[in-house]
Amino acid sequence: MPHTVIEVSRSTLKRLPLYLHVLEDLHRQKQEYISCTALALKFDFGSIQVRKDLEVTGAEGTAKIGFRISDLIRNIKTFLGWHNVQDAFLVGAGNLGKALLGYRDFDLYGLNIVAVFDKDPAKIGTRIFDKEVMPVEKMPGLAARMHVNIGIVAVSAIAAQEVVNVMVASGIRAVWNFAPAPLEIPQGIILENARLTQSLAVLSNKLKCLLEEETKESVPCPM
Amino acid sequence: MPHTVIEVSRSTLKRLPLYLHVLEDLHRQKQEYISCTALALKFDFGSIQVRKDLEVTGAEGTAKIGFRISDLIRNIKTFLGWHNVQDAFLVGAGNLGKALLGYRDFDLYGLNIVAVFDKDPAKIGTRIFDKEVMPVEKMPGLAARMHVNIGIVAVSAIAAQEVVNVMVASGIRAVWNFAPAPLEIPQGIILENARLTQSLAVLSNKLKCLLEEETKESVPCPM
Repeated sequence: MPHTVIEVSRSTLKRLPLYLHVLEDLHRQKQEYISCTALALKFDFGSIQVRKDLEVTGAEGTAKIGFRISDLIRNIKTFLGWHNVQDAFLVGAGNLGKALLGYRDFDLYGLNIVAVFDKDPAKIGTRIFDKEVMPVEKMPGLAARMHVNIGIVAVSAIAAQEVVNVMVASGIRAVWNFAPAPLEIPQGIILENARLTQSLAVLSNKLKCLLEEETKESVPCPM
Repeated sequence: MPHTVIEVSRSTLKRLPLYLHVLEDLHRQKQEYISCTALALKFDFGSIQVRKDLEVTGAEGTAKIGFRISDLIRNIKTFLGWHNVQDAFLVGAGNLGKALLGYRDFDLYGLNIVAVFDKDPAKIGTRIFDKEVMPVEKMPGLAARMHVNIGIVAVSAIAAQEVVNVMVASGIRAVWNFAPAPLEIPQGIILENARLTQSLAVLSNKLKCLLEEETKESVPCPM
């Protein structure tokens, strides 16, 4: 097999799940085929962008008919790595950790949280959604034994770096960070930040601005 | 009061919560003051960027001493609109909606989910974290009576646009969208997308790429 390396942008990666969800909806509605043009109508990217993005996944369409939706779904999932479920460790059994553990749809995205850790003695040994909270010290041994590659950080900003250090030392290859903190990570380890509070910050400030504008107060406004 | 309008970039808005979380940690550790330089050391933005961002919030530092941390926290929270709690409606009592309802820290960010709606008759009337699931048709009346400005969309991609239409018709001013779908929204309404699955897509693809590289398979790699 030739070692062709195609460079894929972060923007393409972020558009693929959007296509996927629309395609899955259409698939459930028993639609069989779709053209790039028809798919593009559901977004504001334009059909050339859609075609380029889909090509990256190796999807092949037929002239005048378009893409078979079931094939497209499989191509995108395989490309994203969602066809194989990856086991993940979650660290942090606080409110955020509980919410993440309770979110049942992660398995649709190839993510399976197999164990949860905390350093708070009061939480260790308790059960959350049928998973026992274990002490962080157990992570290295378990990671090696279970071949876990993904670590989810759901601790406070101040505890996050220490948790990541343990994850890296345990052989974790990819860190999904929900802590609102900047993290240092060695080269070769993947770090992806889920910026929930940052997204909320943009919303809150814009809403405040809108409401204050209406009452004619002075306010700095986002662009 | 003069009507000075300062334009604030989305990037600044997204950095402010990061400062806030670090400052709150330091405040808990009883630290009283911090300089831009010291704060910048915790990030990779540089101190000039930090100073500019903080100035936007109206924070005033003292030469050689820096900023009083408690003042900075208040300034940032006020600027983001997190000092006043805003009531929000959540639509979608599925797995994602349940996880969001179970997340107890939203009140730290000025967000209070006061009611949850769904259109599935099997879910209506059930209780999730002590909130009764109501039919979507009740939203317009309740929104007007309770003066609710924020709507959280936690439904499937295909149902999202319809939900947003009802929210807008109900007088909702700001939509926080967790559905993996592109949404059309009238001018004057705020739309902010929380891209959880997109963040996970980037992580999953990079990890898949890393693992396949190691086994020397051919694979398109992210930049």
